[in-house]
Amino acid sequence: MAVLCRPAVWVPETTISMEETLALARRLHPGHEKLPLVLRMIKNTGVVKRHLVQPLAETLAHPGFEARNRTYVREARLRVPEVVERALASAGVMARDIDAIVFVSCTGFTMPPLSSWMINELGFRPDTRQVPIAQLGCAAGGAAINRAHDFCLAYQDANVLIVACEFCSLCYQPDDLDVGSLLSDGLFGDAIAAAVMRGQGGEGMQMVANASHLVPDTQDWIAYEVKATGFHFRLDSRVPGTMNVLAPALHTLAGAYGWDASKLDFYIIHAGGPRILDDLCRYLRVEPAAFRHSRATLTQYGNIASAVVLDALRRQFDEGLSEGARGLLAGFGPGITAESSLGTWSCAEPVPIGHQAHSSDGHIANVTHTLHP
Amino acid sequence: MAVLCRPAVWVPETTISMEETLALARRLHPGHEKLPLVLRMIKNTGVVKRHLVQPLAETLAHPGFEARNRTYVREARLRVPEVVERALASAGVMARDIDAIVFVSCTGFTMPPLSSWMINELGFRPDTRQVPIAQLGCAAGGAAINRAHDFCLAYQDANVLIVACEFCSLCYQPDDLDVGSLLSDGLFGDAIAAAVMRGQGGEGMQMVANASHLVPDTQDWIAYEVKATGFHFRLDSRVPGTMNVLAPALHTLAGAYGWDASKLDFYIIHAGGPRILDDLCRYLRVEPAAFRHSRATLTQYGNIASAVVLDALRRQFDEGLSEGARGLLAGFGPGITAESSLGTWSCAEPVPIGHQAHSSDGHIANVTHTLHP
Repeated sequence: MAVLCRPAVWVPETTISMEETLALARRLHPGHEKLPLVLRMIKNTGVVKRHLVQPLAETLAHPGFEARNRTYVREARLRVPEVVERALASAGVMARDIDAIVFVSCTGFTMPPLSSWMINELGFRPDTRQVPIAQLGCAAGGAAINRAHDFCLAYQDANVLIVACEFCSLCYQPDDLDVGSLLSDGLFGDAIAAAVMRGQGGEGMQMVANASHLVPDTQDWIAYEVKATGFHFRLDSRVPGTMNVLAPALHTLAGAYGWDASKLDFYIIHAGGPRILDDLCRYLRVEPAAFRHSRATLTQYGNIASAVVLDALRRQFDEGLSEGARGLLAGFGPGITAESSLGTWSCAEPVPIGHQAHSSDGHIANVTHTLHP
Repeated sequence: MAVLCRPAVWVPETTISMEETLALARRLHPGHEKLPLVLRMIKNTGVVKRHLVQPLAETLAHPGFEARNRTYVREARLRVPEVVERALASAGVMARDIDAIVFVSCTGFTMPPLSSWMINELGFRPDTRQVPIAQLGCAAGGAAINRAHDFCLAYQDANVLIVACEFCSLCYQPDDLDVGSLLSDGLFGDAIAAAVMRGQGGEGMQMVANASHLVPDTQDWIAYEVKATGFHFRLDSRVPGTMNVLAPALHTLAGAYGWDASKLDFYIIHAGGPRILDDLCRYLRVEPAAFRHSRATLTQYGNIASAVVLDALRRQFDEGLSEGARGLLAGFGPGITAESSLGTWSCAEPVPIGHQAHSSDGHIANVTHTLHP
């Protein structure tokens, strides 16, 4: 059965604290009629600090969509390799053992996807499947895990690499002055996360089932407006109130396997904001401490979009779990979509995968590697 | 076993003929030093006509990325429903029978993906999985088929809807004057295609295996430059020469199942351009007539990006095949990536899927539908 192994996470060196964020909002929008509300909302996020891929002055300047996207590509190429290397090492696999790469990112755009660059530069086989997802925003972390799980169900010996690369600060739009935008300016952070899902063996979250759920008629609540200046993030004030609809979907998923979503051993939840965590706690009838890892991600990094669930899972690894512990992982994002999964903890040491099919010098012949279902 | 059912295809009413394209190139670029070469290359495409989602005058004007993308969304919402309805009907399934939507499109960008809009508006279940792919260009048609196949391998009773929505004319960039751009202006066309992959039953291409193959170090050969004016398509002159690398990958895929890629009963090949078809014919050692459906798509519609393979498959359906006929389907695009698959023809009449799990009025309860692997 497929196991989601320990994620590797990277955050940039540059940070901005809550105090700096508040001072900045006061400095940039002194006459804004909703400034007191915005400051209160930013304080309520509980985000102590966030990490930025560029120094603050460059983050605040908007050099145009083209230059921004070039920065996105440059920084991704610079930073992704080390994160991927750590994720592979934790899972006990080599690049050549990977059969598919699910690359999720909504804060820059490339065609071909960065997974093509990775195959060329980082030793992945030419026949690695590429699943690039740019349009699911924060839900893409859960979606990546679920699509990797599906792939391992289809090909039981497959290994899938998940990469979530989010430089949210590159979507900062200085001219967007609505409350949702100003709140987002104080909420989102930058990070790269990667993890391997092993079809066989490995320590981590052994996947039991996954599900997707769309909240009807909310497609405009979390959305990009696409403009000459790039992607403009739109956040509706009704978003934090959606947990009353999504909690039943999580209960149903757990119930289908005879589990009680209120009585699990671990919870890895997308930390979109504090209200999402507070509400879901209440609707799932769990103690606030159950979401401690998600809360820590939010507090230390801000909302790092699709990378949140992988970072929260990393914190769960650091804390440890006993064999067989049962848990729920859920990503939320545009749609509004929930991508959730159930898993049990496996403490098995990852057994390195045999490489007998490959030549001894690590060179992969230019052939199609055939996965048998 | 999963069967790719009859695709439905829609092309816009507005057309532009080869003669009009050539006259336009002469009118727009009278002093261009490479004009004779460009005219010759456009003639060589053999594209008799193409279809455009807007009248020609509006196609040639560039109203900005924002307005273009708004046109993309408006036209997609207007036109996708009817194409999807036909694809569902051909496959003998209802919207509520669909477990996943693979929505591929590289000529506009939305977050959330249009699959979210489809779930809201077209009767799909809220728990439908969404796999939106925007970054694989022309290869996304093959990729969509292959990811749908993988999903049906994971969940053997699943049904997957594939939608390829390509309005290439909305990526026309009047200021791009290099030979690759001017050739592309005369090559690409607009279309929407949709098809259902049924996990069980159905008439069409019964999937045997699929594979992906990246040609090393060609990631810049087919690519978007992302600018304030939108996506700028870059086409390297070396692209048509890549079949000598991709043909062996197709041979290897077929060989892994004891098939000979030179001796199959049908071929559904991405018609990127005439040289791709000519070269692949030669490298696969098949008669030019073997690619007649791809050639017909190219001639009648131009290169319609990810929709090509679905349109060529539709033409194969019109012609008919005998039970058990063996074939190869291959999409090519940025990466440079080939997404290919093998299948045998199944003539079984599609048996409508029972809906006993749903209430009689067609209303789907707001619950998570659980697919068991």
